[in-house]
Amino acid sequence: MKIRPLGDRILVKRLESEERTKGGIIIPDSAKEKPIEAKVVSVGPGKRDDNGKLVEPGVKAGDRILFGKYSGTEVKLDGEEHLILREEDILGVIEG
Amino acid sequence: MKIRPLGDRILVKRLESEERTKGGIIIPDSAKEKPIEAKVVSVGPGKRDDNGKLVEPGVKAGDRILFGKYSGTEVKLDGEEHLILREEDILGVIEG
Amino acid sequence: MKIRPLGDRILVKRLESEERTKGGIIIPDSAKEKPIEAKVVSVGPGKRDDNGKLVEPGVKAGDRILFGKYSGTEVKLDGEEHLILREEDILGVIEG
Amino acid sequence: MKIRPLGDRILVKRLESEERTKGGIIIPDSAKEKPIEAKVVSVGPGKRDDNGKLVEPGVKAGDRILFGKYSGTEVKLDGEEHLILREEDILGVIEG
Amino acid sequence: MKIRPLGDRILVKRLESEERTKGGIIIPDSAKEKPIEAKVVSVGPGKRDDNGKLVEPGVKAGDRILFGKYSGTEVKLDGEEHLILREEDILGVIEG
Amino acid sequence: MKIRPLGDRILVKRLESEERTKGGIIIPDSAKEKPIEAKVVSVGPGKRDDNGKLVEPGVKAGDRILFGKYSGTEVKLDGEEHLILREEDILGVIEG
Amino acid sequence: MKIRPLGDRILVKRLESEERTKGGIIIPDSAKEKPIEAKVVSVGPGKRDDNGKLVEPGVKAGDRILFGKYSGTEVKLDGEEHLILREEDILGVIEG
Repeated sequence: MKIRPLGDRILVKRLESEERTKGGIIIPDSAKEKPIEAKVVSVGPGKRDDNGKLVEPGVKAGDRILFGKYSGTEVKLDGEEHLILREEDILGVIEG
Repeated sequence: MKIRPLGDRILVKRLESEERTKGGIIIPDSAKEKPIEAKVVSVGPGKRDDNGKLVEPGVKAGDRILFGKYSGTEVKLDGEEHLILREEDILGVIEG
Repeated sequence: MKIRPLGDRILVKRLESEERTKGGIIIPDSAKEKPIEAKVVSVGPGKRDDNGKLVEPGVKAGDRILFGKYSGTEVKLDGEEHLILREEDILGVIEG
Repeated sequence: MKIRPLGDRILVKRLESEERTKGGIIIPDSAKEKPIEAKVVSVGPGKRDDNGKLVEPGVKAGDRILFGKYSGTEVKLDGEEHLILREEDILGVIEG
Repeated sequence: MKIRPLGDRILVKRLESEERTKGGIIIPDSAKEKPIEAKVVSVGPGKRDDNGKLVEPGVKAGDRILFGKYSGTEVKLDGEEHLILREEDILGVIEG
Repeated sequence: MKIRPLGDRILVKRLESEERTKGGIIIPDSAKEKPIEAKVVSVGPGKRDDNGKLVEPGVKAGDRILFGKYSGTEVKLDGEEHLILREEDILGVIEG
Repeated sequence: MKIRPLGDRILVKRLESEERTKGGIIIPDSAKEKPIEAKVVSVGPGKRDDNGKLVEPGVKAGDRILFGKYSGTEVKLDGEEHLILREEDILGVIEG
């Protein structure tokens, strides 16, 4: 079963803490919003600009991304937790 | 009796819990907004962009969709509960 | 006596409960905003897009519509209660 | 003495209750915003659209209009109370 | 000493109560925002529309204007109180 | 050491009270927002309009300006207090 | 490991207090928002204007910048604290 996100929405799967530690991202202990690592599962067609032209999302399936902890909507797909984010919620793509 | 939604509005019918379980979408127990599964009954003509051109909705009648639990306006049509959503409220289309 | 609505405003007359029941629309008992049935009496010329071009309303005089319960401004015309809505407040047109 | 309203502003004079009753508009007793009848005295040049082009107001001097009770700014001109509204505050024009 | 207002700002000087009474504008005793009479001292170049083109202000130095009581920022110039308003705060120009 | 402001930001240095009194600007004792005199040190390249074209700021280095008391962000440069404002915060330029 | 910021996001690394003192920026003791010095590590592709065209950021990797104290999201990369800001949060670039 698949979800095709609408608009600028992005379906992601949180990465396990172990994997997160390997990746080198550790969440600091401040009161600030803390980013979380996730893997992009599928992306929507993108947002339309003021001329109605689609602006493609800046991430693609498979990308490892950082997003704000309190972003998105949780869904379970085939027994596994996922999140639907907006592209706006994604802070950056982890490379290397 | 039919409803023709205006603008970017979408008429949907919630899917039963049984069907939802079969579909594999289970709502997790967090405090986050929880998406609900529904079937699209009819769609409005879409929203106009800044040049007044219609942007057609990204869903069509028959699509199975996910939407935020607290979205939309309830209506009963021929004895059955329906919801009128805005396209914006729809998170994604379930495929397969 | 007539009212010519300005801009994207729509003059409507609420439909009686009896008629509403016949029409098959029954308002559910949840805490959500509940739509009401009404008949369009007259429509404004529409809203202007960002290029100043008029976008005609999606309803016309005689249409049976659904709108949110708390929308609009009440007026009495020739002794009968009416409502002035914005096109935005109209959820859909009832057909058949 | 005259006032030339700026932008999309409209100078109006409230109509007396007697005249209002003759006109057939009676304000209902609900908690909703209640419209008031008034006569347009003078109108501003209008609002500019996003291309800086003037969009002329939809009312003209002499029109009888309905506006929301809590709209506008009161001014006394030559001893008589007037109101400066924005075109946005005007619900419709009364005809016939 | 002079002030050249920036953007759509307008430098004005409040008119005395005596002059105001002569002018025929008397502020009513309601709870609504009450307009004040003032004379325009100098005007900014205007606001830019969405294409970056200047839209000249609708008032000029010397104009007698009405503005909302709680608008603007007070400044003293050569010992006399003035106000810096935005063109938006000006309700109309008094003529005759 | 220099600061190159970004976008529509403007770096200014508050003028001393003595200098302010000489300049003739005295802040009145009302509850309104009170403008402060300052000298422009450096200006950003400006804001972009909706077509992405730069709109140059209306002030330049050396200008004496008025700004709202509670605007801006304080920084110390080479031991002296400065403020980074947005062009929007500047009410006008003092001339003569 | 690297982070490629999305949109108008900028990845920065706070500069140590010692370095900050050498740079001459000292944060004053007022209640206002206090800027912090940082070094730009990597920048996103920029924001899109209303025509969907990319507007490149005004800073580049290596720039020393000032940003508001409460801006951004903290991340640890290879054991070192970083911040992801929006270009909007950056007040200016320190030169010399």
